[in-house]
Amino acid sequence: MSKVIANMSMSLDGVVSHPESGVEHLFGWYFRGDVLVETGHDDFDFKLTETDADLVRDAMTSIGAIVYGRRTCDEANGWNGSHPMGCPVFVVTHNPPRDWPHEDVRFVTEGVPSAIERAKAAAGGRQVAVGSPDIVRQCLDAGLLDEIRIDLVPVLLGQGTRFFGEIARSPIHLGDPEIIPGAGVTHLHYEVKTR
Amino acid sequence: MSKVIANMSMSLDGVVSHPESGVEHLFGWYFRGDVLVETGHDDFDFKLTETDADLVRDAMTSIGAIVYGRRTCDEANGWNGSHPMGCPVFVVTHNPPRDWPHEDVRFVTEGVPSAIERAKAAAGGRQVAVGSPDIVRQCLDAGLLDEIRIDLVPVLLGQGTRFFGEIARSPIHLGDPEIIPGAGVTHLHYEVKTR
Repeated sequence: MSKVIANMSMSLDGVVSHPESGVEHLFGWYFRGDVLVETGHDDFDFKLTETDADLVRDAMTSIGAIVYGRRTCDEANGWNGSHPMGCPVFVVTHNPPRDWPHEDVRFVTEGVPSAIERAKAAAGGRQVAVGSPDIVRQCLDAGLLDEIRIDLVPVLLGQGTRFFGEIARSPIHLGDPEIIPGAGVTHLHYEVKTR
Repeated sequence: MSKVIANMSMSLDGVVSHPESGVEHLFGWYFRGDVLVETGHDDFDFKLTETDADLVRDAMTSIGAIVYGRRTCDEANGWNGSHPMGCPVFVVTHNPPRDWPHEDVRFVTEGVPSAIERAKAAAGGRQVAVGSPDIVRQCLDAGLLDEIRIDLVPVLLGQGTRFFGEIARSPIHLGDPEIIPGAGVTHLHYEVKTR
């Protein structure tokens, strides 16, 4: 059965998207080392330390499908129809584009649980990644999330989009994390205990 | 020279004080083990695992003075004039109480930098702890903070007071943390790099 996993680079003050300097600070650890990790797109190739490279490679081979919100999709220009992770993508939206020709980026109008279900079917037993804060929150509210993987970056950004906002049911208990120290990042993998 | 250290138990979603269940969830790790750690007050004695007990004992012997905001002081009823850590406390306020008879809890009306200075003088070379989110923010803005120690609790609380809010200068860079895994908590000790 596919696990549903939220994985985000987050500052210590909880920010996952900053209006100006977020990419530089939140994703700087993807370019801190000498180990080249190629993705499907030249623009997205990474230069990582050995530890971080192992982790990113493992994530890339483990993920079978990704669920995003519409804003993330629009900001990424729909990944031009082909996500760098090389897997099918499901975008939750009320207003799907017409005449969208790309099979690997699909739009789901029936809500988050339906998108998760379709992503699981497409993932072929591999993991389903959840890639937008709003979708993560809806998965938490619906009890659909199995793991939260935080790439915790040692920076305070002060403002920007925070990963965790209000949740319908609280508290949500997590297990003690698996901890993988990185360079410019600390990887924390939590199992979601509350359903 | 005394280091100035912010140390808080914080949920993964950044909450350090919850209107209803915060104490239970944020400070539950203080009562997860068999090792008794006595404080100056019977009401505050801890039952910790060996690792967490070592850390708490070390903190207790390292701290020479604490700086709080007025609200924290009021919520704790002024610690009845004697803080459980057994060290002098400086409370930043515009309106100090009249006829306050307790020497070990002192009120400072000249602002946060003055309170830090007085706490350093009282700490005798030991650490100065900063104990309220608002005071931490002001220390960050003034470049007065040396370390941030987060006791990161694996729970999502959804609402409550967040440790980190807006900061005047951002980003503030931290070093990669010293990591001490605990039971129901992950201790992360960050050096503040940006001044």
